[in-house]
Amino acid sequence: MKQVKEKNMIFGIRAVIEAIDAGKELDKVFIRREMGGELAKELFDKLKDIQVPIQKVPLEKLNKLTMKNHQGVVAYISSIEYQRIENIIPALYEAGKDPFIVILDGVTDVRNFGAIARTCECAGVDAIIVPMKGGAAANADAIKTSAGALHVIPVCRENSLHNTVSFLQKCGIKVIAASEKASHDYSKTDYSGPLAIVMGAEDVGISTDILRIVDDMVSIPILGQIGSLNVSVATGVIVYEAVKQRN
Amino acid sequence: MKQVKEKNMIFGIRAVIEAIDAGKELDKVFIRREMGGELAKELFDKLKDIQVPIQKVPLEKLNKLTMKNHQGVVAYISSIEYQRIENIIPALYEAGKDPFIVILDGVTDVRNFGAIARTCECAGVDAIIVPMKGGAAANADAIKTSAGALHVIPVCRENSLHNTVSFLQKCGIKVIAASEKASHDYSKTDYSGPLAIVMGAEDVGISTDILRIVDDMVSIPILGQIGSLNVSVATGVIVYEAVKQRN
Repeated sequence: MKQVKEKNMIFGIRAVIEAIDAGKELDKVFIRREMGGELAKELFDKLKDIQVPIQKVPLEKLNKLTMKNHQGVVAYISSIEYQRIENIIPALYEAGKDPFIVILDGVTDVRNFGAIARTCECAGVDAIIVPMKGGAAANADAIKTSAGALHVIPVCRENSLHNTVSFLQKCGIKVIAASEKASHDYSKTDYSGPLAIVMGAEDVGISTDILRIVDDMVSIPILGQIGSLNVSVATGVIVYEAVKQRN
Repeated sequence: MKQVKEKNMIFGIRAVIEAIDAGKELDKVFIRREMGGELAKELFDKLKDIQVPIQKVPLEKLNKLTMKNHQGVVAYISSIEYQRIENIIPALYEAGKDPFIVILDGVTDVRNFGAIARTCECAGVDAIIVPMKGGAAANADAIKTSAGALHVIPVCRENSLHNTVSFLQKCGIKVIAASEKASHDYSKTDYSGPLAIVMGAEDVGISTDILRIVDDMVSIPILGQIGSLNVSVATGVIVYEAVKQRN
């Protein structure tokens, strides 16, 4: 892991600015809390224009990431190219397709993320939407578990999944959330037409502000004692129910 | 991992004999290839009476497992208690239940094994059958990934899955194999009544001698480029299709 991380790591203000200028997609940027100066201002301006999770950290954190001269900034170049959902949806409609989207609200385990991407690619899902902050990184482990699917299926990072759900609904897309608390059986729901399925975090599920606005909530019946399915298995069960109904 | 392994490890001929006499379930026994002597004969006699995978290995392999005085034998005590399918099936019929069994033909990844056990427990599967040799161990990682399901759902180890499939069929159980090569859509099959679903190894799928005798072969439609689902996701998709039809 360490080697993979270091291969994708860049550091130093000028190096990060150059990467952004070169159009490199960044997975994450760590910046020293009390950073200032002319060059830092230039960096901040550049970062404002791109979609990337920024984390302000104490100096010690940066020193742990690299012992080299990082000048207060360490960034990781992304292994995949993120796309914009605002571009994908119109393109699908123009092609005469009903969009089929999967939204992951805080799935943090990279293997789950990878397995879900693999399932979605196999099921003909058009795009996966993840949050800008708090989701699993599309790192080497995720890509490996996805059997390469993360290089094939479009992935979009969004600042606010709540706004994204609203946007999808305005585009005529029905948004169905999978929640253990739902009483509606997943197999008795209509998945035809433009569709987005929301899957929640491994521990806390889908955030309340999203549950509040979705069009339907469904659950998978649990007959045993364990109480819940692994999120990648649950995604497979629901996505393939949708595939069956849509074809 | 190393610590977990060592915690479950026993070595020395007398210690392994005593573990067997005490009714401890063994996951695996490594024996030195050229072992002989009176005590070794006693060990071999004991091993004949129990169900355990035995692997004959060169001395160097044993020395790598432990630097202590192993006397040519190292064994691992199982974290779960295996059960016998010959006991489970009659008990289910007596209870007025249609058996619902999942057979794993060579699933070697412990996380996949764990995730499948979790799914099966959630779906009300009555037992999981694995091969004596070549399957994933029910080790600490498998149990963790199963969210404890491996302590709840009965697991049976069988010397010959081919014979087990025949046995199940003689018990009136329909055996359905999931195979990428099958043309029959998994969702168009009848899963009612006594049922066993066979899932295959991550790489090579189900062995030919089993495919030859099963009652039906089904596949999950793949709409993307990646070509195949993760085996634990595929198990979830098929098992929950069966759950839906059976309830």
